Amino acid sequence: MALLARARELEAAGRDIVHMEIGEPDFSTPRPVREAVARVLADGALHYTPACGLPALREAIARHYAERFGARVEPDQVVVTPGASGALLLVLGVLVERDAEVLMTDPGYPCNRHFARFIEARARSVPVDEATGFQMDTALLEAHWGPATAVALVASPANPTGTLIAPGELEAMAAAARDRGGWLVVDEIYQHLVYGREPASVLSRTPEVFVINSFSKYFSMTGWRVGWLVAPREYVPALDRLAQNLFLAAPTPSQHGAVAALGAPCAGILEAQRAEFAARRDFLVPALRELGFGIPVTPEGAFYVYADCSRFTDDSLAFCRRLLEEAGVAVTPGCDFGRHRAQTHVRFAYTTSMDRLQEGVRRLAAFLEGRRKTP
Amino acid sequence: MALLARARELEAAGRDIVHMEIGEPDFSTPRPVREAVARVLADGALHYTPACGLPALREAIARHYAERFGARVEPDQVVVTPGASGALLLVLGVLVERDAEVLMTDPGYPCNRHFARFIEARARSVPVDEATGFQMDTALLEAHWGPATAVALVASPANPTGTLIAPGELEAMAAAARDRGGWLVVDEIYQHLVYGREPASVLSRTPEVFVINSFSKYFSMTGWRVGWLVAPREYVPALDRLAQNLFLAAPTPSQHGAVAALGAPCAGILEAQRAEFAARRDFLVPALRELGFGIPVTPEGAFYVYADCSRFTDDSLAFCRRLLEEAGVAVTPGCDFGRHRAQTHVRFAYTTSMDRLQEGVRRLAAFLEGRRKTP
Repeated sequence: MALLARARELEAAGRDIVHMEIGEPDFSTPRPVREAVARVLADGALHYTPACGLPALREAIARHYAERFGARVEPDQVVVTPGASGALLLVLGVLVERDAEVLMTDPGYPCNRHFARFIEARARSVPVDEATGFQMDTALLEAHWGPATAVALVASPANPTGTLIAPGELEAMAAAARDRGGWLVVDEIYQHLVYGREPASVLSRTPEVFVINSFSKYFSMTGWRVGWLVAPREYVPALDRLAQNLFLAAPTPSQHGAVAALGAPCAGILEAQRAEFAARRDFLVPALRELGFGIPVTPEGAFYVYADCSRFTDDSLAFCRRLLEEAGVAVTPGCDFGRHRAQTHVRFAYTTSMDRLQEGVRRLAAFLEGRRKTP
Repeated sequence: MALLARARELEAAGRDIVHMEIGEPDFSTPRPVREAVARVLADGALHYTPACGLPALREAIARHYAERFGARVEPDQVVVTPGASGALLLVLGVLVERDAEVLMTDPGYPCNRHFARFIEARARSVPVDEATGFQMDTALLEAHWGPATAVALVASPANPTGTLIAPGELEAMAAAARDRGGWLVVDEIYQHLVYGREPASVLSRTPEVFVINSFSKYFSMTGWRVGWLVAPREYVPALDRLAQNLFLAAPTPSQHGAVAALGAPCAGILEAQRAEFAARRDFLVPALRELGFGIPVTPEGAFYVYADCSRFTDDSLAFCRRLLEEAGVAVTPGCDFGRHRAQTHVRFAYTTSMDRLQEGVRRLAAFLEGRRKTP
């Protein structure tokens, strides 16, 4: 965040900055979503929805699982939330007692740790590397699961690595968590943003899991703050009560927009954006490898590349600072995502246009000239 | 909530129900707000805002304090939140350690207790009655403040009682909390909804306080989920970090709408709505007294009347159930707001039109005929 603030300062002073640090799509919210909300605004009925969300949205989400993933999800298992953040707060609030543990990968999404601390639970890091595609797997889950562990939290595709967990592996992890009296929580917020393969959901394989999702990423609705949770039915009354207390409900205009986002008129727009992300990845990954960054597992999803920069530095934060100041390229240091090998990794986001990515790579090439550490 | 669900069931079956239980304005969001958001939608720029909110909104809120209340609030003391719920979560998250206590009135807003529990703090009830206008005062704060107390949370006007705390009293309470190493948090979400007097803010009297507010009530923006917090400047970095982790930001369309809500074109609409609420209160309070309900302190704000029903029942929940089933009038039992005298109180909300309120009073009169307890 300090680097982002510094990047904004430099821009305000007239510098041109290539942004490869931003974790949200550069696309506008699709026009059919905006038009649907404009119609609701004209009507003026913008009161609270039920705590679990507009019935029409819960039904549309359930239908989406059936049609896209062949997964059976009933509308009353869907809890609409203020973003995936709201879903995570609810699921941890309901599943995790104080001082209990939540397993999460290092590197991983940085807020997860803070959520755990906020509810007086403990984040337990599971260091991951290329051996498991930078993901938790069943063996790691079993090895790190302790007497106080209540939940294992994974993301597929993941931030910052862009890597996936195979559906069969997720199913096995869900079973392993249940065998130990706990739950697997799968963050699928980048679910549709996969390249060279079809989107998948763990819910196609097992109902014995909690799934977090969001309209922010694939649907380009970050600022709308609307996401959802799919939960085993017996947990919904507790989730409903907690949502009622903590949020009252997700924003009403955003929920109407979300219904439209799942509709047919958006499908083509969203798939064209996905193709654009795929093209950017297909450019960026080989270009970074060519420059000397280590990318042992090709990222297949999200819009991130987590790259080993140990050929250039042992201090990725200082590296990012110099890269910004000297070359005008903003990337995110590994320390934003954990501790494990954080000093030798950086995250590139391809949430900017192809020509800006190309400019970023040109600047990187000039910056790195002569910076390779002597062996 | 069970009564509300039952009321909806009865309506679905064709019964006509007078709703005097609903805690949100019956007015539409003002047209200038909806039009401003429609313009933003056409532009399409709906990304995340900074965690503390759109700079233009923080500035508009600060200006509003200066112009309406003569209070000096800097824009960087304003943290925009997903509703007042988000503000309460942030303030408790930053001020209250685990197992610490939060003083709150009984009766009071029911979610407060759950927020405290969610962060593993303890709600400590302060029973209040007509002697203090159903409010905490300095003497009660001092009497209940213990070694583990971190925060006293009050609301003016309050839900469910509609009563106010005098600004001088709030100033004294803020000082008493500071003297004890803690803080006074004042919920001002009904600030502008006062009748027969001018709106006030504790911030006109002291900066040594945290203030929670919202666009939901006076501005008729419940479904938009946007509120704010005013905090002493030294707490803003911690609030900013927590907001970044828990919410990312408040909804972007709603924040643009909130800027418009504070603009001149809304002022006349909002004051006309306030006058309508005043007229409803002026009808309802004497009508309920005439029927035999005890209202020892005339409510001067919000849109609630908290009425003693002990002339009719010692079981207000059963009373509410019968009133709904037999007379088709929905009101809220005291047990929704605490325990203190809850069995002999009910809350009436005047969030429905004057003719519906009149119909409600007619039905109440018929229902109560002959129900007075024999002395």
